[in-house]
Amino acid sequence: MMNKETDLGVLLKPGERVDDLHRNQYKIIQNTKKFCFGMDAVLLSGYTKVLPGEKVLDLGCGTGIIPILLEAKTQGKHFTGLEIQEESADMARRSIAMNKLEDKVDIVVGDIKEASALFGLASFDVVTSNPPYMNHSHGIINQAESKAIARHEILCSLEDVVREATRLLMPNGRFYLVHRPFRLAEIIKVLVDYGLEPKRMKLVHPFVDKEPNMVLLECIKGAKSRITVEAPLIVYKEQNIYTEEIYDIYGY
Amino acid sequence: MMNKETDLGVLLKPGERVDDLHRNQYKIIQNTKKFCFGMDAVLLSGYTKVLPGEKVLDLGCGTGIIPILLEAKTQGKHFTGLEIQEESADMARRSIAMNKLEDKVDIVVGDIKEASALFGLASFDVVTSNPPYMNHSHGIINQAESKAIARHEILCSLEDVVREATRLLMPNGRFYLVHRPFRLAEIIKVLVDYGLEPKRMKLVHPFVDKEPNMVLLECIKGAKSRITVEAPLIVYKEQNIYTEEIYDIYGY
Repeated sequence: MMNKETDLGVLLKPGERVDDLHRNQYKIIQNTKKFCFGMDAVLLSGYTKVLPGEKVLDLGCGTGIIPILLEAKTQGKHFTGLEIQEESADMARRSIAMNKLEDKVDIVVGDIKEASALFGLASFDVVTSNPPYMNHSHGIINQAESKAIARHEILCSLEDVVREATRLLMPNGRFYLVHRPFRLAEIIKVLVDYGLEPKRMKLVHPFVDKEPNMVLLECIKGAKSRITVEAPLIVYKEQNIYTEEIYDIYGY
Repeated sequence: MMNKETDLGVLLKPGERVDDLHRNQYKIIQNTKKFCFGMDAVLLSGYTKVLPGEKVLDLGCGTGIIPILLEAKTQGKHFTGLEIQEESADMARRSIAMNKLEDKVDIVVGDIKEASALFGLASFDVVTSNPPYMNHSHGIINQAESKAIARHEILCSLEDVVREATRLLMPNGRFYLVHRPFRLAEIIKVLVDYGLEPKRMKLVHPFVDKEPNMVLLECIKGAKSRITVEAPLIVYKEQNIYTEEIYDIYGY
């Protein structure tokens, strides 16, 4: 197969496709064999508050879904995505070019563990992350390396993400995280230990009578301890039919 | 008013009444001017697992609702309630006599802060607590002292309760707690720091689309970090009509 040019003038590599984001007519390049964004990233972008003029960093941005959606949904000044996998970062950069967002969104190739050294202390108003969920004792490592790095804590741990987020944020800066509920106790302990106080939490349940399979958190650097646990977000009202709240977040 | 004797041969003091617990025909003495048990205590007794032969301690038992309900619902060997307020403990003791539970349930007057010195280290399989929810920076102190002590952290803090629970439990012993969600981050941090790993959590929402107003936690002393966040418990299906799950827990 040859590379082909999209109608927006951007090259697609073999196995890649262009998906519509239903926001500002933005599109994103994905490769189903490597890694596609999930509902997690969309819900995190819906949960994240970015005020006009703020600078935002996404730790582990993959193909750029969170910076691109946040650029569409907010009036933030600038959005940076940090990604360690060159191939994902390259797809993210071509998506940004395709959407003509080069002035608003940057993709940087680098290691989350060194993010604060790379960007400097207290350099962002908002940090987001949809990090690898699985630590070594849980789940089976996916054989395709790019998916494994995105899903398992091979190259960085939860503590790495939280430590770097704290360092990167200005005082009172906000950290937004999506993760799996089975790690909630560890997540809260690490956040509190690093001074990123959890202030808002939303559990995402596939159905109202089922266990949650995602947790969304808003933390404020240096805030006092007091959290609002919000009403749950229910994904499906019946089999294959999303609730209104999900349609709203997806922008359909 | 004079003290009056109930048909079960126990004296009631002025202002006291006898309520039916809908379990084993057990009854409880309460005084609406002082302190009555809430849904919190009933839900905690429904959430607590006691295996046959186990020894159970309730930290801050008030009028004895949790030990009495757990005696009714489980095959535990023995139940102890620790209460600092002599007046509540006296009501609890008369309720125990009224239900003829003197061989199974003891009420001890004493301070939670000294509980492990009082009962000895590693002396219980299960510890429960429905502690004061409000720390000094939240809410208004109720002027009636007995209510204030039960609701506000005047005589003991969350950390006191957790520290003593850890000391009182055998290895792999279980701690069950009901509390307010606004303190969830602090609760989890303190539990993890004291080695009482949160293993199961249930949020209680008045209605399905409202924020939770209670959180139930099961912790295991010395366990690995991994929590099951359960399906939410919804209290009302419509105004003034409980859901089936609540009727089940209440035993109606």
